[in-house]
Amino acid sequence: MAETIIRFGIIGCAEIARKVSRAIALASNATVTAIGSRSLDKATRFASANNFPPDAKIYGSYEAVLDDPDVDAVYLPLPTSLHIHWAVLAAQKKKHVLLGKPVALSAVEFDTIIEACESNGVQFMDGTMWMHHPRTAKMREFLSDKQHFGQLKSVHSCFTFGADRDFLVNDIRVKPDLDAHGALGDSGWYCIRSILWAVDYELPKTVIALRGPVFNEVGVILSCGASLSWEDGKVATFHCSFLSNLTMDVTAVGTKGTLHLHDFIIPFEEKEASFSAGSELAFNELVTGWVPLPSKHTIRTDLPQEALMVREFSRLVENIKAKGLNPEKKWPTISRKTQLLLDAVKASIERGFETVEVGN
Amino acid sequence: MAETIIRFGIIGCAEIARKVSRAIALASNATVTAIGSRSLDKATRFASANNFPPDAKIYGSYEAVLDDPDVDAVYLPLPTSLHIHWAVLAAQKKKHVLLGKPVALSAVEFDTIIEACESNGVQFMDGTMWMHHPRTAKMREFLSDKQHFGQLKSVHSCFTFGADRDFLVNDIRVKPDLDAHGALGDSGWYCIRSILWAVDYELPKTVIALRGPVFNEVGVILSCGASLSWEDGKVATFHCSFLSNLTMDVTAVGTKGTLHLHDFIIPFEEKEASFSAGSELAFNELVTGWVPLPSKHTIRTDLPQEALMVREFSRLVENIKAKGLNPEKKWPTISRKTQLLLDAVKASIERGFETVEVGN
Repeated sequence: MAETIIRFGIIGCAEIARKVSRAIALASNATVTAIGSRSLDKATRFASANNFPPDAKIYGSYEAVLDDPDVDAVYLPLPTSLHIHWAVLAAQKKKHVLLGKPVALSAVEFDTIIEACESNGVQFMDGTMWMHHPRTAKMREFLSDKQHFGQLKSVHSCFTFGADRDFLVNDIRVKPDLDAHGALGDSGWYCIRSILWAVDYELPKTVIALRGPVFNEVGVILSCGASLSWEDGKVATFHCSFLSNLTMDVTAVGTKGTLHLHDFIIPFEEKEASFSAGSELAFNELVTGWVPLPSKHTIRTDLPQEALMVREFSRLVENIKAKGLNPEKKWPTISRKTQLLLDAVKASIERGFETVEVGN
Repeated sequence: MAETIIRFGIIGCAEIARKVSRAIALASNATVTAIGSRSLDKATRFASANNFPPDAKIYGSYEAVLDDPDVDAVYLPLPTSLHIHWAVLAAQKKKHVLLGKPVALSAVEFDTIIEACESNGVQFMDGTMWMHHPRTAKMREFLSDKQHFGQLKSVHSCFTFGADRDFLVNDIRVKPDLDAHGALGDSGWYCIRSILWAVDYELPKTVIALRGPVFNEVGVILSCGASLSWEDGKVATFHCSFLSNLTMDVTAVGTKGTLHLHDFIIPFEEKEASFSAGSELAFNELVTGWVPLPSKHTIRTDLPQEALMVREFSRLVENIKAKGLNPEKKWPTISRKTQLLLDAVKASIERGFETVEVGN
């Protein structure tokens, strides 16, 4: 049976939409059908600059994309504060929703989005691309390997990048009315997700923000960190920032194994990505070296992770459209947990670094 | 002028003394002259197993080593609780002191040791070997390079190892009367030192222990962590444990550079050691990869780091003995700051994870 091609509408011409447009073109089960911007001119330029199919429709509004019956799914790379409006509206118009991160300003707000998706039978997925890299699946295998990794004990994640002056003045991620969570919402989202991923999405019991967050003059977080702890003794920390050199680490340590990688969100190279795995590492007899050494694992991928994300999302949409299956709940569930922890870190900062119990 | 050979006495037959005996043999300006153990038999076996010079003196007590006029310096690989007694006595007997870590049960106790060393004109150094690896100097150059590393913003350090059942029952590091600080005193010492090293020994303003420390049934720490913050906004975290696979990370992130290494205390191999340095790392135009990539720097060393430590210590002793210079204060100062932060983490844990202001 021929693959159904899922037809995407793109809402807005954000920088990140360039990468996702290419990803949609690369995914064999997806195509770009429409783009909408508040400026028709901008949408036209975007379509041309990003090699849209000649028959792609170009609209001067977001609504027009949602009203187009030829659009199956939308990609929403909008500022966080606009998510609730446009994601809910998209769902109501029966469009499947691929949403930029962070998914909302709060988990409560996100619940409205999930509710709209569920009641309209549409698939939800957030745009956390690294989840779809085959390396991620390979690392999951290692973390789940009781014999070689054992029981997870601690995770550390760090995502920082050095924003330039223009970013720190003009980017939506430093504006309280657009991406109100700043570095926590942007880079912290990935750190939190990586920690959740490592613990197989078990929510921690408590979250405490670390001292020393940095804010801009209008109160948006430019740098912060947190410590998370689980009932069973697992612990995690993360640090996220717009003010440091590009760094992208995950370290997960188990009773028997250690996982390291330094490019978890955007792999150093598109076609292959590595991680380091060490199992039952020890010192030599005189404690002057290690035996064995950790080993490097490299995973090739023909499609970049963002195209694999689009392909997976489109596959789930096809399951609904062509096979009558229900939307896959795994993705909104993961998004919600990530948002819940983001909320907890924010709350801890606001309450002067108090311990925040994580609810549901 | 011929090099003066510093004559070492070793106090006790701890496991680590094997490695340091070899280091003394390897250092051209040092030799083992004597060993003392509470058991003459044990000392005899140790001397023979570790290829001591045939004329090395073997004593059935620690005191005898201190009373030997042919001993210039002593290496004290004793349980922490015994440091104050033996280090002070050694200093009073005019022996230069190379002391295992942690240096004392508290900074207050350590001050007594420093005082004894100062008033007797003897050199003090703690046995933190990685400080003396040429890699450490090379990494210091990178961290101090304003153009390529910029201003330090955050540090994360992790040292864990999976102690076996025998260690967790019998090792001195799980005994409240011997090494009362457990994993904090043993592996946490190195984490704290690496953080201090990265910030060029500037003490943080506050220290807070992280939730989730693990204790054994007699209250000794088996796993813990802390968050440190500085007046100028620098932040650091560390995690240390006896309960996880061997992991040994330092990550230091500056405004323009990132340093990573995964074997900071004991290099993977004896003859060469590496670190990763990235400077002004960024994404490519479509954010599908990094340009430039971090680069790996490998430093060869003919002598292992513990022999370089012995050589440096012996050089300082020679400066005092042969040239009439004063003891080098850098080393006890660094030891004291490390101990001070160790005390602060301990205090924070004991006070229910309160913020501890770091004094002097």
